[in-house]
Amino acid sequence: MVPKKTLKLVKSLQLKKYRQQEKLFLVEGVKSITELLISSFRIRTLVGTSVFIDQHKSLISKRLPESAIYQAKESDISSVSSFKNNNAGVAVVEMPALRALPITLLGYALVLDNIRDPGNLGTIIRIADWYGISTVICSPETTDEFHPKVISASMGSFLRVSVYRANLTTYLQKVKLPVYGTLVSQGTSVHELNFAPQGLILLGNESEGISEPVKEYITDAVHIPQFGTAESLNVSIAAAVICDNMKRNTTKNVG
Amino acid sequence: MVPKKTLKLVKSLQLKKYRQQEKLFLVEGVKSITELLISSFRIRTLVGTSVFIDQHKSLISKRLPESAIYQAKESDISSVSSFKNNNAGVAVVEMPALRALPITLLGYALVLDNIRDPGNLGTIIRIADWYGISTVICSPETTDEFHPKVISASMGSFLRVSVYRANLTTYLQKVKLPVYGTLVSQGTSVHELNFAPQGLILLGNESEGISEPVKEYITDAVHIPQFGTAESLNVSIAAAVICDNMKRNTTKNVG
Repeated sequence: MVPKKTLKLVKSLQLKKYRQQEKLFLVEGVKSITELLISSFRIRTLVGTSVFIDQHKSLISKRLPESAIYQAKESDISSVSSFKNNNAGVAVVEMPALRALPITLLGYALVLDNIRDPGNLGTIIRIADWYGISTVICSPETTDEFHPKVISASMGSFLRVSVYRANLTTYLQKVKLPVYGTLVSQGTSVHELNFAPQGLILLGNESEGISEPVKEYITDAVHIPQFGTAESLNVSIAAAVICDNMKRNTTKNVG
Repeated sequence: MVPKKTLKLVKSLQLKKYRQQEKLFLVEGVKSITELLISSFRIRTLVGTSVFIDQHKSLISKRLPESAIYQAKESDISSVSSFKNNNAGVAVVEMPALRALPITLLGYALVLDNIRDPGNLGTIIRIADWYGISTVICSPETTDEFHPKVISASMGSFLRVSVYRANLTTYLQKVKLPVYGTLVSQGTSVHELNFAPQGLILLGNESEGISEPVKEYITDAVHIPQFGTAESLNVSIAAAVICDNMKRNTTKNVG
C-alpha cells in the first residue's frame, strides 16, 4: 500500500508552486525512469507497478532503500500521474543544486527567450542532447524545465542537458560570444553561414519571436531558407534545423 | 443564436466516425480560419465571435451566405471546439474530393508509415509546406489528417499540402523513384548524401520506426548524424532535418 501522503505529494508536484516549495519534481514512464535509475540524480521515492519494479529490481534496490519503494496498481499510479495511462511508475526526484551560469563555453549553448509550451521546451532539450549541446539558458518567463511535460518530451535528455535561468539581456551583455539570433527571412541563411567554433543560438517565443530588448544582442541574424508557402516553423523544428546546420558546418567528420 | 443542431454537428466532428460519415471537418482559431477564407476549400458553416466576424466581414460574406454564418459567445464556441479557449470561431468544411495517387512527381513527397500522433502529422504537413513539398502519402494506419489537432498543428498548411492514403508496399512497388528511408545510425548521413532531383522521403512510426514490409522498398537508407547521447529524435524533427538537407543539397540558390 502506498501511503496517502506519498500519493498526495506526487499529485501536488504536477504544480510548479509545490515543485518549487519542495525542490522536487516527477519523472514518469518506463523510458525516463529507467534512464533516471542509471543517472546521478537523487531519487526520493518510487511508486511503480509490480511488473516494473520486478523488471528493474537490481537497479532500483541499488538506488533506493526498501522503505522508499512502493508497489501500486496501474490505475492508482495513473490517477496521480500526468500520463493518462501510466503502466510503469512515477519517481519523485530532487532538483539538482543550482550551478553558476557558464560565461565561457566549449561549444554551443541554446538561449531561449520566453518559450511557453512545455512540449517545445522538452523537445528542444532532446535536440540539444542529440547534437551534443549540454547547456540551455532560459529567460525567466520560459516555461518551468521541471514541468512533467518537459521531462516527458525530453525523453531522458533532461538528465544530460543542464538548464539554467537568467535575465537574458544581463547575460548576453557579459558573454563574449557570437549570438546567432533566429529570425524569419532576415540575416544570413543557415545554409550559407560559417558558424564560429563557439557561440549561442538564440530562439524566441512561439508567436512573438525574440523580444525587442534581447534582439539588441544578436551579433549574427540567421534564418532558415523557405522554399514553400508556410509562414513559419515551430520553434523546436527551427532549433533542430539550426543545430543541424551548425554541426554540419563546424564538424569535419560526421558519423 | 446558433441552432442546437449546428452546435451538435460541430461537436460530433471532433470524432473521426462522424467526419467520415459527413465528409466534413473542422477548422478552428484565428490563423487557420483566416487562411481558410482565402483558400478554395468549400466552407459549409461558420460559427464565430462577433469580434471575429466583424473583423473579417467582407471576406466572410464573399464565402458564405448570411444563413450559414452564426454569431456565438466565446464560451459556447469553446464548448464545442477542440481548443480549450477558442476566441475566434469554428468552421465546418467539406473534405476535398479524393484525387488519384501521384505516381510521378516534380520534386519530393513525404511518405509516412504509421504516424500516430496528430501533433506530429500536423507539424510534418507544416514542414512539407515550408520546404515546398506539396504531397504527403500516409499509410492507412497513420492518424486521420482531418483530426482537429492535425489541422491546428499544420497552421494553415493543410490548405496547400495534399494528403493521400495508400497501402505503402503497393504504392512503393509502382513508383520508380529513389526511396530515402530514415533509420537510426544506418545508411548514409544526410550531411554527405547526394539527393536525386526527385524522390520519396520515408518516415516511420514514433516508437517502432519503419515497418519491416515497407523497409524492403528503401533504395537509400539515410540517417541524421548524432553528436550527443540522445537515443533518437522526434519524427517531425527528423522530417525537418532531412527536408532541410535535401533542399540544401538539391537547390543552388537559396533565399
